[in-house]
Amino acid sequence: MSKNVLVFGGSGSLGSAIVNLFKTKGWNTISVDFRDNTNATQSVSITSSNESEVKRVLSVLGSTKVDSIICAAGGWVGGSIVADDYFQSVQKMLDFNLSSAVATAFLAGKLLNTGGVVVLTGAKSATVPTAGMIGYGISKAATHHLIKSLAETPELSGSSSLGILPVTLDTPSNRQYMPGPYDDWTPLEEVADKLFQWSNDSATRPTNGSLVVVETKKNVTTYSTI
Amino acid sequence: MSKNVLVFGGSGSLGSAIVNLFKTKGWNTISVDFRDNTNATQSVSITSSNESEVKRVLSVLGSTKVDSIICAAGGWVGGSIVADDYFQSVQKMLDFNLSSAVATAFLAGKLLNTGGVVVLTGAKSATVPTAGMIGYGISKAATHHLIKSLAETPELSGSSSLGILPVTLDTPSNRQYMPGPYDDWTPLEEVADKLFQWSNDSATRPTNGSLVVVETKKNVTTYSTI
Repeated sequence: MSKNVLVFGGSGSLGSAIVNLFKTKGWNTISVDFRDNTNATQSVSITSSNESEVKRVLSVLGSTKVDSIICAAGGWVGGSIVADDYFQSVQKMLDFNLSSAVATAFLAGKLLNTGGVVVLTGAKSATVPTAGMIGYGISKAATHHLIKSLAETPELSGSSSLGILPVTLDTPSNRQYMPGPYDDWTPLEEVADKLFQWSNDSATRPTNGSLVVVETKKNVTTYSTI
Repeated sequence: MSKNVLVFGGSGSLGSAIVNLFKTKGWNTISVDFRDNTNATQSVSITSSNESEVKRVLSVLGSTKVDSIICAAGGWVGGSIVADDYFQSVQKMLDFNLSSAVATAFLAGKLLNTGGVVVLTGAKSATVPTAGMIGYGISKAATHHLIKSLAETPELSGSSSLGILPVTLDTPSNRQYMPGPYDDWTPLEEVADKLFQWSNDSATRPTNGSLVVVETKKNVTTYSTI
């Protein structure tokens, strides 16, 4: 029987890459996002990541359980405490990044089979102070704390809770707004491949609760646990 | 001329103790809270810690600047990812703890005199995973990140950004809901006294960006920087 992966943010750049790769490997893919991903086995469209919408996902899925659940949703805006849009940028980052992680953690508690894996997306940049991007930094620091807390959650014992902390992903959005060099950016397919390894073979997984920095230099990607 | 302290959450247990102590030392005290603190030199009542209300505080204060600004607001609720009220508890902790810290950071950027100090309240418990109190843990981990980021904010250079990370404060609320022994709880007056030292004499301050654990054992309180 095929295994199941749920990708929160399954219609975004990273999420689509994950859905595509798991699909080629014969997994059933469930995308949860604001837009449908018609490439996924099942696509659940939500209007927000708040309680009622996330609980609706559960009712749509019925008795389906998953072997891997990944939060690929998120975004970036900058801004310090003196930026004109400080409050909005903080709220936006909490909504985009932390709410997605909080929702994925909830779904993991309800849906993850024992022996499975839940992966949330952090950021290497938030492992140090982020004065120029307060909202982004606090949303990702909170996500890092959530990952480590999931690793100690009794209901997830037997499964693995991991974080990926990219430096720069090679997404269309980043290509639009940031200068290269692109050979220092991580291809989405490489991240998807690493996530598939962790999902498919528990022996490849880092220690439960690990935050794994994903960094690419001159087209070579390294994964280092912090 | 008297110095000024702004206490965000100045009507709560800790906030009132801070207002009282600074007042006895001859400082002008400005309380910002949902309820007025009539003991403060100036009390600004707000209905939330969102943008419009916090910006209204600025207009009420006019040209007043402050030498110390302290976030004493916050609260605690527990709950893991499988708790029935998971989403509500997470939102409540972000509202109580993180929004207060985010608002205080904003006010520090606008009001703090060079050479001043801004102090946010974290929690020792959030320096490790908090599976049984997800919302509290992520709100405080984000606050810790905010403190360290304020220390690197150019507009606050010359001032100090610090965190206090209590274990258990001896508040009426804690006495109502938690068992003792009370001699392992930190008296509010001791915290207020330490905050006054930092505010009044920059030589007593820990390194900019420090998180200072406040822990009491058998009526002896220690302050250790992590």
